[in-house]
Amino acid sequence: MFSIEKKGKGLARAGVIKTIHGDIQTPAFIPVGTKATVKALSPEQVKDLGAQAVLANTYHLYLEPGSPLVAKAGGLSKFMHWSGPTFTDSGGFQVFSLGVAFGKNISKFSDTPQLEEEKEDEESEHVRLAKVTEEGVTFRSHIDGSNHELTPERSMEIQHELGADIMFAFDEFARPAAELSEHRAAMERTHRWAKRCLDAHTDAKNQALYGIVQGGRSEELRKESARTLAKMEFDGFGIGGTFTKKDLVLTLDWINTELPEEKPRHLLGIGEPEDLFIGVENGIDTFDCVAPTRMGRNGSLYTKRGKINIQNSKYASLLEPIDEGCDCYTCSNFTSAYVAHLFRGKEMLAATLASIHNLHFVVTLVAAMRRGILEGTYQSLKDSFLGAYQG
Amino acid sequence: MFSIEKKGKGLARAGVIKTIHGDIQTPAFIPVGTKATVKALSPEQVKDLGAQAVLANTYHLYLEPGSPLVAKAGGLSKFMHWSGPTFTDSGGFQVFSLGVAFGKNISKFSDTPQLEEEKEDEESEHVRLAKVTEEGVTFRSHIDGSNHELTPERSMEIQHELGADIMFAFDEFARPAAELSEHRAAMERTHRWAKRCLDAHTDAKNQALYGIVQGGRSEELRKESARTLAKMEFDGFGIGGTFTKKDLVLTLDWINTELPEEKPRHLLGIGEPEDLFIGVENGIDTFDCVAPTRMGRNGSLYTKRGKINIQNSKYASLLEPIDEGCDCYTCSNFTSAYVAHLFRGKEMLAATLASIHNLHFVVTLVAAMRRGILEGTYQSLKDSFLGAYQG
Repeated sequence: MFSIEKKGKGLARAGVIKTIHGDIQTPAFIPVGTKATVKALSPEQVKDLGAQAVLANTYHLYLEPGSPLVAKAGGLSKFMHWSGPTFTDSGGFQVFSLGVAFGKNISKFSDTPQLEEEKEDEESEHVRLAKVTEEGVTFRSHIDGSNHELTPERSMEIQHELGADIMFAFDEFARPAAELSEHRAAMERTHRWAKRCLDAHTDAKNQALYGIVQGGRSEELRKESARTLAKMEFDGFGIGGTFTKKDLVLTLDWINTELPEEKPRHLLGIGEPEDLFIGVENGIDTFDCVAPTRMGRNGSLYTKRGKINIQNSKYASLLEPIDEGCDCYTCSNFTSAYVAHLFRGKEMLAATLASIHNLHFVVTLVAAMRRGILEGTYQSLKDSFLGAYQG
Repeated sequence: MFSIEKKGKGLARAGVIKTIHGDIQTPAFIPVGTKATVKALSPEQVKDLGAQAVLANTYHLYLEPGSPLVAKAGGLSKFMHWSGPTFTDSGGFQVFSLGVAFGKNISKFSDTPQLEEEKEDEESEHVRLAKVTEEGVTFRSHIDGSNHELTPERSMEIQHELGADIMFAFDEFARPAAELSEHRAAMERTHRWAKRCLDAHTDAKNQALYGIVQGGRSEELRKESARTLAKMEFDGFGIGGTFTKKDLVLTLDWINTELPEEKPRHLLGIGEPEDLFIGVENGIDTFDCVAPTRMGRNGSLYTKRGKINIQNSKYASLLEPIDEGCDCYTCSNFTSAYVAHLFRGKEMLAATLASIHNLHFVVTLVAAMRRGILEGTYQSLKDSFLGAYQG
């Protein structure tokens, strides 16, 4: 399903992932459509901004509308009217971040402010509500508090019903603040669950299954996890858990020198421009992240000079595009002043135009990295981009 | 600017309004884009659903972002990236309904429940905050409570800056519950203001100006208003104020037998399917109304059998389009179950898909009436539509 076209700097490579819904030219940024919709966008708008695939969340779709309905509708792609490839995550991260923490924001980075909140809260009732056993995880819905259980087999069954082209093995997500021993236990259980996922995935020939590398911030665990999963019959790999932002390079290097070169690798939940460069150089093929759309809805927009907040008063009368030279739908047709006006008026089109711009920005950036690898101009692209961009 | 192609039943006629931004084939339903955006839709989505023009609200755009900015951006059409014809209302209705009543919902029909609320509230502080003099109306912004004044001349100046193809004279809107004498006084002032608007509108050759017929529910006043305005040099006429729903036929007949046949007539704020038939048969050429989009955002959707609420549990698993046979974008690509799922999940795409469907429904219905007039099949269209539709 995956072939490498050309290798670049470090572990970087340009390749193609083939699915029955079309090809994904990698490296690629994959927009998130949590509940089978990329927030505020029509599928055509997602396609037009350059996205090749979308990633939906198994946890959310399991709770609503339920995977049997999605199956009856012809699968995720048909249900949401997205003709390209689709991914579903395993539900693991959300079970722990939403089902356990009841809506609390767990960051993918362990050195962000959210971590502090998590640390303080780790003994709270919410955390104790999640019950992890060898069989699986019992959790309460963040929507209505009802009780549910996800196991590796159940995650596979749900993902088979959702019918995405690429699915992920069910993993245990250790709290960022956990001790090494707890990270080891979660990792080892993730490996046993990975085996159970593979055993439950023998019939779905059109759906690829990725194993998820865990191990937190530990070199020993990350390498062991990558080596263990590398020996299994996965079609590709997801890199899960949390990282310290400054150790992202190291962590990815530990993992991706162990993973088999010929299989695709997906970095879960990372999407800031600087991190995308780090990911690509360290062997990542696909990324997903809610940041571009979530930030967009708050008026935080990417530009070549860094992020701006369109609600800042200086944009209220600026009759120029958000990012000069950007060829997205928003910048091609609307001024900063118009977008700012929509935000001030709390108009829904504000979220649409901001999400299009931000997603186009990251999708296009990663596509440019791909071209850089193919044409040998990656380093000059990176120097030029990061020289102008104030993150 | 207006030519009649064919006359139909009663006062019905099919025609064409010519503007420098394109033609409007009438009768036509014009979607409302209050703040220079049709809520939840991109301009392309508005165009694709069949809309020929949009109507924006002068009151809102005056407050935010201000008409000088819109002028500097090249006018309303360019500012909002809508290449077709545009209308702006006079600000009159909003000054009274929002500026005076501070967000309270004033219905266009005087026999709806809103009227009762209005009656009870008529002595409230809000109402007393609006000060109408011969010069104009002093009012407080519904956004921040700041003081403003609109006069006929100021409304013209603002509408010239907004630059819509069709603009309306500034009128006084009498409270639905007002006595006949109050309606007469408001009407007579509207006529004096109409003259001032015309006097202030000598330079704007590409912008048509419509006078607004007032007079409430009184035959005497409506006829007098229509006769008086008919003698003035307006390019067309708007029919404003409130009606009793059961007297809509009569009221329009009183007015439109007095208005000159060769000029276009716009019915302000009316959009229910049954009322659109009444409007067309009684000589209306264009309609605008927020109902299709407002209802859509609440999940209330038009179908050939009447309105449904998509949030009703029976639609949660219905893998059929919202309205069988409907060729709108929503019905062509999504199931009722998917739209219901988006509403349950509070996803913005829910509002988008619902608004597209509802606007397409009324735009297409009025376009079918036009075809009916041209092809002599109006009555069979009406019988067939109203036979199935339970309003």
